[in-house]
Amino acid sequence: MAATLQQSPPHRAVVEHLVRQAVYARMGKPLPKAAGAPNPLVVNISARHCHLTQAAVEILFGKGHQLQVHKWLYQEGQYAAKETLTLIGPRSRIISNLRILGPCRNLNQVELAYTDGIALGFDLPLRGSGDIQGTLGCMLMGPEGFFEMEQGVIRAMRHVHMHPTDAEFYGVKAGQQMRLKMGGACGLTLDRMLVRVDPSFKLEVHIDTDEGNACNLQPDTPCELIT
Amino acid sequence: MAATLQQSPPHRAVVEHLVRQAVYARMGKPLPKAAGAPNPLVVNISARHCHLTQAAVEILFGKGHQLQVHKWLYQEGQYAAKETLTLIGPRSRIISNLRILGPCRNLNQVELAYTDGIALGFDLPLRGSGDIQGTLGCMLMGPEGFFEMEQGVIRAMRHVHMHPTDAEFYGVKAGQQMRLKMGGACGLTLDRMLVRVDPSFKLEVHIDTDEGNACNLQPDTPCELIT
Repeated sequence: MAATLQQSPPHRAVVEHLVRQAVYARMGKPLPKAAGAPNPLVVNISARHCHLTQAAVEILFGKGHQLQVHKWLYQEGQYAAKETLTLIGPRSRIISNLRILGPCRNLNQVELAYTDGIALGFDLPLRGSGDIQGTLGCMLMGPEGFFEMEQGVIRAMRHVHMHPTDAEFYGVKAGQQMRLKMGGACGLTLDRMLVRVDPSFKLEVHIDTDEGNACNLQPDTPCELIT
Repeated sequence: MAATLQQSPPHRAVVEHLVRQAVYARMGKPLPKAAGAPNPLVVNISARHCHLTQAAVEILFGKGHQLQVHKWLYQEGQYAAKETLTLIGPRSRIISNLRILGPCRNLNQVELAYTDGIALGFDLPLRGSGDIQGTLGCMLMGPEGFFEMEQGVIRAMRHVHMHPTDAEFYGVKAGQQMRLKMGGACGLTLDRMLVRVDPSFKLEVHIDTDEGNACNLQPDTPCELIT
């Protein structure tokens, strides 16, 4: 019951991919390249958020506190937590309702868009997730306490999660870069998208709110991965 | 005195263009295509702003009020005014310090980024400047009064201002679309950039804050117009 309660409906890209494959099969026609991909291409906007250690969660929300699931994300086992925080930046400017993504990790990291960074007064470094050495920190405020992050405030590099079968299909390897073409009236192509490959990954591009709003990304915006 | 007070230094792109041409001439080498362009390519971010009629200015700032120059813009005769407004959106959410651009026009128009629209609760239509028929309005608040704009809140189409000699060089006509390639660690290419041509225009691309922050546009970011 708890599991179904928070279940999201399948992503539009997943349904479209299945329908497209079924229609071509029904017509007895060969699949065009994108429709023949092993997995549908899902593009999601990551709004600003943070990842925390269990220790940080307990300082902010109380001893023994466990993050609760607000909404399951597309990547297996990942979720937006019910818990949010207040971030206090270098000029005492704040961001309220900063969402925590679960489950807990072994490092603390805040991922902001450049628009957020400008509003807060951060000169955000562009980093791959987890690569936070030498970055700025911030103060986080929860209902039960303050937690001073000494480093870890970044603008995450745009990236695509891939299963090894996707990497094989697109002919790329982990650490390489691809481009993402997005259509529509405000269409654009993002360069230098980091490829991340893991057997646990589902094919999904993560862009931030600046990128999503620059092209007005909608559920029906056509998206294409380009090598 | 008043004129020099507000004068901006030449845009970096202008200086680079002159230096590049001088260096190639000194070396006695033929100019590469971009360096041979009649004018430097300037790319500027337009933060949210509004254009007002003189009648609206007087309702907001008092009878007979004239906009004052805060900073001259790159296009001849255009300026950011000292005066700013408070915009009140459909959910009573506000934007403070909305900059007015002068001189006054014969229509009232507010240009926001999609990020602003989401924050305010506007479903912004994408329009060319001046094409505001049927768009939503808003309430504007100045120190001397309120002005209800019945329509005119838009997300302006990304566009490039061109002198006819620039249009000839790039082989485009007014109303056509070009692309803008921007480099750097967050590089991207913007499609569907509207070409606007007028003998009074200097070559300049206007992108909004979402687009500028999506690619982290900096003074030294390489930019290229593509047909």
